[in-house]
Amino acid sequence: MSLLATVSSADLPEGAQGAFEEARARLGPLDQAALAAAWSRQASLTKPPGSLGRLEDLAAQLSGIAGTCPPPRPLPAVVGVFAGDHGVVAEGVTPWPSEVTAQMVGNFLHGGAAVNVLARRVGAEVLVVDVGVAGALPAGAGLVRAKVRPGTANLAEGPAMTVEEATAALDVGAALASRLAEAGAACLLTGDMGIGNTTPSACLVAALTGLPAERVTGRGTGVDDERLARKQAVVAEAVRRLPADASALEVLASVGGLEIAALAGYVVGAAAARRPVLLDGVIAVAAALVAVALAPACRDYLVAGHRSVEPGAGAGLEHLGLTPLIDLDLRLGEGSGACLALPVLDAAASLLAEMATFEGAGVAQGPLA
Amino acid sequence: MSLLATVSSADLPEGAQGAFEEARARLGPLDQAALAAAWSRQASLTKPPGSLGRLEDLAAQLSGIAGTCPPPRPLPAVVGVFAGDHGVVAEGVTPWPSEVTAQMVGNFLHGGAAVNVLARRVGAEVLVVDVGVAGALPAGAGLVRAKVRPGTANLAEGPAMTVEEATAALDVGAALASRLAEAGAACLLTGDMGIGNTTPSACLVAALTGLPAERVTGRGTGVDDERLARKQAVVAEAVRRLPADASALEVLASVGGLEIAALAGYVVGAAAARRPVLLDGVIAVAAALVAVALAPACRDYLVAGHRSVEPGAGAGLEHLGLTPLIDLDLRLGEGSGACLALPVLDAAASLLAEMATFEGAGVAQGPLA
Repeated sequence: MSLLATVSSADLPEGAQGAFEEARARLGPLDQAALAAAWSRQASLTKPPGSLGRLEDLAAQLSGIAGTCPPPRPLPAVVGVFAGDHGVVAEGVTPWPSEVTAQMVGNFLHGGAAVNVLARRVGAEVLVVDVGVAGALPAGAGLVRAKVRPGTANLAEGPAMTVEEATAALDVGAALASRLAEAGAACLLTGDMGIGNTTPSACLVAALTGLPAERVTGRGTGVDDERLARKQAVVAEAVRRLPADASALEVLASVGGLEIAALAGYVVGAAAARRPVLLDGVIAVAAALVAVALAPACRDYLVAGHRSVEPGAGAGLEHLGLTPLIDLDLRLGEGSGACLALPVLDAAASLLAEMATFEGAGVAQGPLA
Repeated sequence: MSLLATVSSADLPEGAQGAFEEARARLGPLDQAALAAAWSRQASLTKPPGSLGRLEDLAAQLSGIAGTCPPPRPLPAVVGVFAGDHGVVAEGVTPWPSEVTAQMVGNFLHGGAAVNVLARRVGAEVLVVDVGVAGALPAGAGLVRAKVRPGTANLAEGPAMTVEEATAALDVGAALASRLAEAGAACLLTGDMGIGNTTPSACLVAALTGLPAERVTGRGTGVDDERLARKQAVVAEAVRRLPADASALEVLASVGGLEIAALAGYVVGAAAARRPVLLDGVIAVAAALVAVALAPACRDYLVAGHRSVEPGAGAGLEHLGLTPLIDLDLRLGEGSGACLALPVLDAAASLLAEMATFEGAGVAQGPLA
C-alpha cells in the first residue's frame, strides 16, 4: 500500500478550495442499522456479555461509521502529520528554537522519528504535510507541500492568521482526508509538528471549553516553572482578547495555528468520508474541538487515542465526551499516541468479525436467560 | 514460528518434576549495565527527554530483563492458556456450568475464542495446557496434556489440593516456560480458562495481600448481587480458615487452583529464563502474587498487561507495585488483556532500537543543557 503516492501536492492548497465546506455538507450521522447489528452480533459471541468492555463500544462505533457490520478489516491507516510554525515562540513559551520544526520534518522524511517507528510497527503510513513551516525544508520524497503561509503571526500581538488563511488550511486538511479515503485509507490518525504549538492549542481549548487558561496550559514538551507562568499569561491574555461573539472560525484564526486548522479540516473530511479519526494528543484535541464546533456531527467519528500529560488534552476530551484508549504519560505528539492506540481499534473490529458464536462453537450459553 | 511444536506432552507432568525449584535457583536480578545503557540511549533520541512516558521505563525494563540494549525485537510471543476446573463451583459462586471449561478449550483449539483472535492480530501463538480440566476434552492438535488432577476439591470444604499436587502444577508451568524460552519465545503472556476461577483468585489475593475478602472479590464474568454475596462469604471463610503461619505454597494448595499454580510456575520459569512475563487479569495477578511470594526476584520480570474490572486484579497489582498498560474495562480473562498490551511492549522496544539520535538526524537538542 502506498497512500502517499496517490496524494499530489500539485494542486494544494489552491486546488483544495472549498473542500472543507464540501465535506461539512456531506457529513452524516452514524449508520443506526450497522450499530444495532454490531450489538446483536456481540451478544452471540463466545464470552460473557459485556466482558470485552470498551472494545465492544468501539466495535459498534466502527460499524456505525463504516455502515457495515462487522467493520472492514484490516484497517489500512495513515497518519497525517501536519507541520507549521508559530509566531508566539517570540514570547518565550518554549525553549526549543523554531528551526527544529523543519529539522524534525526532515527526520520524519528519513523515518527516524518516534511516529515513524510506531507507524511501521502498526502498519500505518506517515504522510507529512507542510501547511505552514517557516524554515527551509529539506528536499525529498514524501512531503506534501501545501504551505498556506510560512508560520503564523504572534498571537500575543494580534490574530495568528486571517480568516482566509484559516479557511485555506481547513481546506488542505479536508481535501487530504478525502483523497486518502478515496485511495483506500480506512482509518485516519492525526499527527503534528510545530515548535510552540501547545500554546495555540491551550488557547483553543480554553476558548472552546470555557475553562481557565491555567487549567488547560501545561509544560508542553517540558518547560520550567518560569516559562510555564509566562505561557499561561500569554494564553489567558489571548483568550481574554477574543470578542465575546467570535465564531469558531474567528477563534481559530485569532489564536490557532496552521497545522491545527488543517487538522480540524482533516477531521471533518475523514468523518464526511465515513472514516474513523484516531486522535493523538493536545494538538489533535484542540483541532477536534474546532472541528466539532464547526461541524458537530463529526464528534461520533472520533476515537481518542491516548491521554496526553498536557492538561488541555484531558480537559478537551472530557468536553468532547471522549475517553482515551491509552494512558501512558506520553507528551511527544507527532501522532505517537494515536499509533499506539491503532492496534486497539484493530482488535475491537477483529473480535467482532472473527470470534466464534455460542451456537457455532458448541459452548453452553449458561446463565443467559 | 511454531513454538507449540517444540513442546511435547509426553513427559508432562511427571518429567517436569523439580522444574520449579530449578527455575527458582536460576532466577537472577535484572542486568544493571543493560538498564543503564537503555537510559543513556533514551537521552540521545530525537524527542524531548521523558516525552515517551512509561514507554521509556518499559524499554529499560525489557533491556534489563534481556541483558542487552536495545532489547531483542521482534518479540516472538506465546500465550500460555492454562485450564483447570474448580470444586468450589458447587457453592454456586458462578452461574456457568463446569462443562464450559472443556467446551472453551475446544473453542481455543479451533481458534474461535477472543484470545485466539487477539493473539493472531498481534502475532502471538496460543498454547493451551490442560493442567486440571474435569470434563472430557476434545481430541485435537495443539493441546498440551499435563493434567495433575481432574479439577480441584471444593475449597469451601477443605484444601483445594494437596501440597504435592500444587507443586506438580508449579512444575508443569515452570517446565513449559523453560521449554518455550529455549524454543525462541521472547515474551511469555499469561492466559487461563476455568469456570469458577475468580473465586480461588480472590482467596489468594486476600490471603497474600491481607486485604478483606469483600474488597477483592468481584462479579467475575458477571454474577448478580445474591451470588456475589455468597462468593464473598466463601472467600472470607476460606481465608479465615488458613493457619496464620501457612507458607505461600500451603496457601496455594489450600485455596488456589491448578491452572493458577501452573501459572505461578510459568511466571518463575519465564523470569529464570530472562523473559518478560506479560500478565493478563485477576487470575494472572493471583498467580503473580504466589510467584513473588515463592521467588521474590521474579517481580522485576513482570509487566501488567491491563487492569481487569475484577477488584482483586487492581488490588493485587498495587500490592506488587505494578501499573497496568491498558485499562479498557475488560473482564474476560483467557489472556485477552495481555494480548492487547503486547503491541505496547513491542513499541517500547522498537522506539529504543530504531529512533534517530539528535546527532545522527541533525536536529538541535535545544534546551538540554
